[in-house]
Amino acid sequence: MRIESVDFFYLSMPEILDIGDGSQDALLVRVRAGGWTGWGECEAAPLPSIASFVCPMSHSACKPVSASVIGQRLDEISDIRRIGDLVRAESLDLLQADHTLSGIDMALWDLWGCREGTPVWNLLGYTRAFPKLPYASMLFGDTPEETFAKARGMAFRAAKFGWGPIGRGPVSDDAAQFRAAREGLGPDGVLLVDIGTAWGEDLERASMALPALNECGALWLEEPFVSGALGEYAALAARAGGVKLAAGEGSHNIYMARHLVDHAGIGFLQIDAGRIGGISVAKDAADYASARGVTYVNHTFTSHLALSASLATYAGFERDEICEYPVEPKSLALAITADHLRPGEDGLLRVPAGPGLGVRVDVEGLRPYLVDCEIRVGGRLLYRTPELAD
Amino acid sequence: MRIESVDFFYLSMPEILDIGDGSQDALLVRVRAGGWTGWGECEAAPLPSIASFVCPMSHSACKPVSASVIGQRLDEISDIRRIGDLVRAESLDLLQADHTLSGIDMALWDLWGCREGTPVWNLLGYTRAFPKLPYASMLFGDTPEETFAKARGMAFRAAKFGWGPIGRGPVSDDAAQFRAAREGLGPDGVLLVDIGTAWGEDLERASMALPALNECGALWLEEPFVSGALGEYAALAARAGGVKLAAGEGSHNIYMARHLVDHAGIGFLQIDAGRIGGISVAKDAADYASARGVTYVNHTFTSHLALSASLATYAGFERDEICEYPVEPKSLALAITADHLRPGEDGLLRVPAGPGLGVRVDVEGLRPYLVDCEIRVGGRLLYRTPELAD
Repeated sequence: MRIESVDFFYLSMPEILDIGDGSQDALLVRVRAGGWTGWGECEAAPLPSIASFVCPMSHSACKPVSASVIGQRLDEISDIRRIGDLVRAESLDLLQADHTLSGIDMALWDLWGCREGTPVWNLLGYTRAFPKLPYASMLFGDTPEETFAKARGMAFRAAKFGWGPIGRGPVSDDAAQFRAAREGLGPDGVLLVDIGTAWGEDLERASMALPALNECGALWLEEPFVSGALGEYAALAARAGGVKLAAGEGSHNIYMARHLVDHAGIGFLQIDAGRIGGISVAKDAADYASARGVTYVNHTFTSHLALSASLATYAGFERDEICEYPVEPKSLALAITADHLRPGEDGLLRVPAGPGLGVRVDVEGLRPYLVDCEIRVGGRLLYRTPELAD
Repeated sequence: MRIESVDFFYLSMPEILDIGDGSQDALLVRVRAGGWTGWGECEAAPLPSIASFVCPMSHSACKPVSASVIGQRLDEISDIRRIGDLVRAESLDLLQADHTLSGIDMALWDLWGCREGTPVWNLLGYTRAFPKLPYASMLFGDTPEETFAKARGMAFRAAKFGWGPIGRGPVSDDAAQFRAAREGLGPDGVLLVDIGTAWGEDLERASMALPALNECGALWLEEPFVSGALGEYAALAARAGGVKLAAGEGSHNIYMARHLVDHAGIGFLQIDAGRIGGISVAKDAADYASARGVTYVNHTFTSHLALSASLATYAGFERDEICEYPVEPKSLALAITADHLRPGEDGLLRVPAGPGLGVRVDVEGLRPYLVDCEIRVGGRLLYRTPELAD
């Protein structure tokens, strides 16, 4: 069969707030081939991603993503990776292409799984999907007291606190926040801390926080630095004692993930399948990390379609148990799918066992969030929001 | 003063051919502040770059580039870097942003230089601009005989041959091509070889070409591998003998450039100021390379505005003499400026000494290449090709 159509749907909350909540809009992708339909999601700015799919060619290594996807053969499972390689080669100089490809690759795996009647994690070679321990992401409170109250009220066995005031004042303020989170969670809760790159490349500032993090038994310290600061990561890792470094959510190709594993001394590699180039590349990153003793973790902040896709990539890794779970997404993110992944009574999350990504896209539910777009170049209509249907 | 407007102009040849010629279209940027105008150029896919400037916000770290530029204060030269830092922070998750910023940063330096009556290279701290030795980029011929004839007819003292059949057949074919190029150039010509990433990550295949490259006295071997394959670069560099590795044109932030210097064993760092984030980041990359004994080279394949900008970044480096010169650009690339940089009788290229980037944009000359664009989201007009004027 051949890829007949790839359609992008820009979805948005009525109002976008200037806060660090990535679930306020979404870019959904529908791929059709041989009578089958697959769905994926780009964790990306919608308009530039759509533009990178439909733009005119600039030269032989700067083609629109569509040029390497529409009309391509899809007769074997290996065609999905072949198409991804083609996009990377023919859109080499189109920076946004990796983000755009991510949702397409996801949809291709979903489509192929639906056709085979097999879950994507099984297509990836896993014979079993192990349950994951979801952690809830939340902001630090403005005060330690607020953080304590948030942690105390938590329904999850693992929690990540980040952003807010952390890393922006004196180190004693950070220490008070870490202690409040630990006290609220209790001694058995898994505590994760996210600095959100606030320390830039400042190794000494980051080092000052290590004693309190170790005292509180934090499992990981996430993104103390911007992701390219490999040397600073490695130096901090060498000083860090029991707390491990975590990073990788910004990786938009396999090399960025590898560099973190090879040169940054991280203990946890966090990959967003909606950014790195889809399930195919996320799986490569998982294998690379696993072979080198680095624990793989999904990065997911949006819909349960994206969640299913990111869990599939490492579903068969029994020891890599922890996973990110979007705990307070906007209504849009929940409206995208009719099925939702909820932790069981044991607190663990199961990867769907149905065909493809195992969650149904809810076309009627997401319709109210659909944003009309139109792009014209040189008098030609290159994009208009397509008709929404299963 | 404040940044009052940033306007993007999508320019294109009437027909875009599926060849590796990046001068077939262009994205020009005009910035206005306090009655002054500056011009820059993104070496990037025009439509996705425009979209990344005007798109709606997705969340606090995925804002349109415009949000961090329009209305910003421009009272000191350090404001240019401050604005770049702001774009990188507030558009962190917008992949295309680095390419879009590149042209804006270039225009800001041009504007500031015009206002001060000073060339950009002087604003960057150089007291003198040393002449550069331009090399001509050309494709290998389909046969060694064709390559010999091309090299023989060359008016430049240095030439880079690349792409075409190279690296795609047996190693003996490559060796015959290298020898033909050397014979055509004569013993004194500077010979550069560009593989255009054709060997992917295949270290053994690349190693097989080393004896012939050394025999022919090639100064550098460019992009044998995809740019993320740092380990393969380092291993090849250790085996390479006299020929040095060159890479870096795809770098879209300072970290990618640093990683090549730190982990890939390259001898030449090639940076495109129209991709890495503009003149500011290109200058940082030049300083980083220089401090570590790596020679800096511009990557320029488009207009003489982009050429002036990329030369300015390392104009004061006396020992880093070689520079890329777009030898056969399309008419569009030449139409962008009224002034052109031509090698002198000594074969050397001088960086312009006039204020700013020292070349005048030819508004009437480029008008025939202007492409009309229109982007609407949710019923609102976000972009329409602005009026073209000085």
